Amino acid sequence: MALIVQKYGGTSVGDLDRIKNVAKRIALTREQGHQVAVVVSAMGDSTDHLVELALAAGGDMRNRETDALLATGEQVSAALLALALGRLGVPAISLTGPQAGIMTDGIFGRAKITDIDSSRVKTELNNGKVVIVTGFQGMTESGDITTLGRGGSDTSAVALAVDLKADSCEIYTDVDGVYTADPRVVNEARKIHVIGYDEMLELASQGAKVLHLRSVELAKRYGLTMHVRSSLSFVEGTLVKEVGSMEGGNVVTGIAHNRSLARITVTGFEGGTKGFAELFRRLSAEQVNVDMIVQGATRDGMDIVSFTVNEDDVSKSLEVCESIGQVSASQDVAKVSIVGAGMISRPGVAAEMFSVLSEALIEILMTTTSDISISCLVPHKDVEEAVRLLHKEFGLEG
Amino acid sequence: MALIVQKYGGTSVGDLDRIKNVAKRIALTREQGHQVAVVVSAMGDSTDHLVELALAAGGDMRNRETDALLATGEQVSAALLALALGRLGVPAISLTGPQAGIMTDGIFGRAKITDIDSSRVKTELNNGKVVIVTGFQGMTESGDITTLGRGGSDTSAVALAVDLKADSCEIYTDVDGVYTADPRVVNEARKIHVIGYDEMLELASQGAKVLHLRSVELAKRYGLTMHVRSSLSFVEGTLVKEVGSMEGGNVVTGIAHNRSLARITVTGFEGGTKGFAELFRRLSAEQVNVDMIVQGATRDGMDIVSFTVNEDDVSKSLEVCESIGQVSASQDVAKVSIVGAGMISRPGVAAEMFSVLSEALIEILMTTTSDISISCLVPHKDVEEAVRLLHKEFGLEG
Repeated sequence: MALIVQKYGGTSVGDLDRIKNVAKRIALTREQGHQVAVVVSAMGDSTDHLVELALAAGGDMRNRETDALLATGEQVSAALLALALGRLGVPAISLTGPQAGIMTDGIFGRAKITDIDSSRVKTELNNGKVVIVTGFQGMTESGDITTLGRGGSDTSAVALAVDLKADSCEIYTDVDGVYTADPRVVNEARKIHVIGYDEMLELASQGAKVLHLRSVELAKRYGLTMHVRSSLSFVEGTLVKEVGSMEGGNVVTGIAHNRSLARITVTGFEGGTKGFAELFRRLSAEQVNVDMIVQGATRDGMDIVSFTVNEDDVSKSLEVCESIGQVSASQDVAKVSIVGAGMISRPGVAAEMFSVLSEALIEILMTTTSDISISCLVPHKDVEEAVRLLHKEFGLEG
Repeated sequence: MALIVQKYGGTSVGDLDRIKNVAKRIALTREQGHQVAVVVSAMGDSTDHLVELALAAGGDMRNRETDALLATGEQVSAALLALALGRLGVPAISLTGPQAGIMTDGIFGRAKITDIDSSRVKTELNNGKVVIVTGFQGMTESGDITTLGRGGSDTSAVALAVDLKADSCEIYTDVDGVYTADPRVVNEARKIHVIGYDEMLELASQGAKVLHLRSVELAKRYGLTMHVRSSLSFVEGTLVKEVGSMEGGNVVTGIAHNRSLARITVTGFEGGTKGFAELFRRLSAEQVNVDMIVQGATRDGMDIVSFTVNEDDVSKSLEVCESIGQVSASQDVAKVSIVGAGMISRPGVAAEMFSVLSEALIEILMTTTSDISISCLVPHKDVEEAVRLLHKEFGLEG
């Protein structure tokens, strides 16, 4: 008998029929003799609908009341799933984040899990029940309801699996694993059977949306294996786990791309190191996450700096920068990244990437690198071609 | 400075505009220097929608998971109201039933409040906040979410007002008070300015829907005055309170009617007292509430019994009765009741009621009486006329 944590995302519980389908899948796992704890997201786009309501009522995304409102989404899907399991004759109980003992800090809208008291979950599992825990939410020490931010249910599932010392943590989603590139862009994209934490983190942070970044960080910290798979089939998905690097790993494991960003350029100011520091300090104070940065000086000795931000942060960034110099912003850009743990031991990967893009006459606007990734900002119109060319160049069709 | 508990029903918070309107009203009360604790129902028909979902998922109305699901309705309206107050610059906090310390027994779907630990509510009030508590729900000792049954928010408000020793408990609804009869039926119906607990209980149990029966019982037990009024105007409503009976009170204070019932007749069984007892014991075991009962014997010595039940309980009642004798059911009936604390000291009220109905050729199918009410079952088509005639007969136009 194993203890399995299964997480079902919003698409997997998008309507009552899908919830009944998920119930059948859980019943099957249980028939195989396993204990099952389940983490669910809110149904389909119900969180979007609740966010709209909160904003219309005068709230924002950093608000105790917005969190209390959003948390109802998972309560609904969890209770419905428990009812559907009951109908199948499977004893089940739904627990809210607070009831499941998921404790967080008090940062509303993007709270971090600080501790789990899973005694109730364990009791119910030992009573022979399937325990369904609402993802995405927790409770502060003073009893307030918090949410973990978009995609937070993945993190709930990993945290619960770690605390329960689960044998397996299955993340069910609407794709059947992590691919070498977005299959909607690259027909030849191939499912990755096993991927290391660091590569998965890099893919996720560079735009692959299949897993919440923080869930992978948490799994890495505790050495928990995640199994990303589809709720609509029974094929094996992708295992995210510690991968031995004796052989250096793949040079390139996957290609990520991100179209949801903008490039901002500030010119006409005398800054020097101090000026740059002040600029980015002020952006950071406004909670703006800056990604790529290129800085330099123009011929007339003025400083110039370009950086990319998430498209949601453009207006806030412009506000900050307009007090400093002349600003321009463009959303006509996108980022393509190659990710592979093996590139650290093989020089020339960057050169190979650049030459593929330049041969295709794709302009490279900015570049950043890490130990296991290289990213290029390219014109928005060229990003899909860039992904396809790089996928081919680095032999990912398999 | 007074401490005022205000309860807003589903129609009063039916959409975001109405919620904003309620927020303004609360802000006004606060500007007058009062502390305000608010109890809210779910928005409009959202509870109906959640009930449908629960049933479609395989649940029933006596289920832990159904309660967990239904409780989200009030969480939504409470959080939105808190956001709307925040937008008006009024500090506010929403608390779920569990957060507000509303403890109940474990009877899902119709839990009873056993205790309130209002320490958090008091703390937040003393911090200068408007405290918004979700009505209709509480928590068992083991931390499970329960609901109090239809109309339960009234009871939540009274319980909270009692526990907080509030100066006033205002029940806001879509009518501006308790009327001598349903104004949709009787044009001349008059608002009752003050009504005693017992009369209010009798009106509520005989079909007047303005207040939840249990809330009046609770208010009576603790001597709390309830003020039933409209959320859309500022006119005084109806005070429900202890009324001195030195003068015997009104002979008739109001007329209630109820169209949501059915008459069931069982014949062809030999029962005697024992048989009747067995029949009603089995109905009670099925949670069927029997209202009026008439029993007798037919010419051939067989027993016959007729009784009324709520229309929702017809099929369950038929199941029980079919194993006992021949059964017929009719929903072509309705009940009209006259209620008044003074009728106890004035004989002939029943006779007056019967003669009014018989002069109008309205058939009286059954009758029941209590100290302060007389009810007649009449044909469904005649009930409105009966209400109008009795309203006139007993001088209620004022």
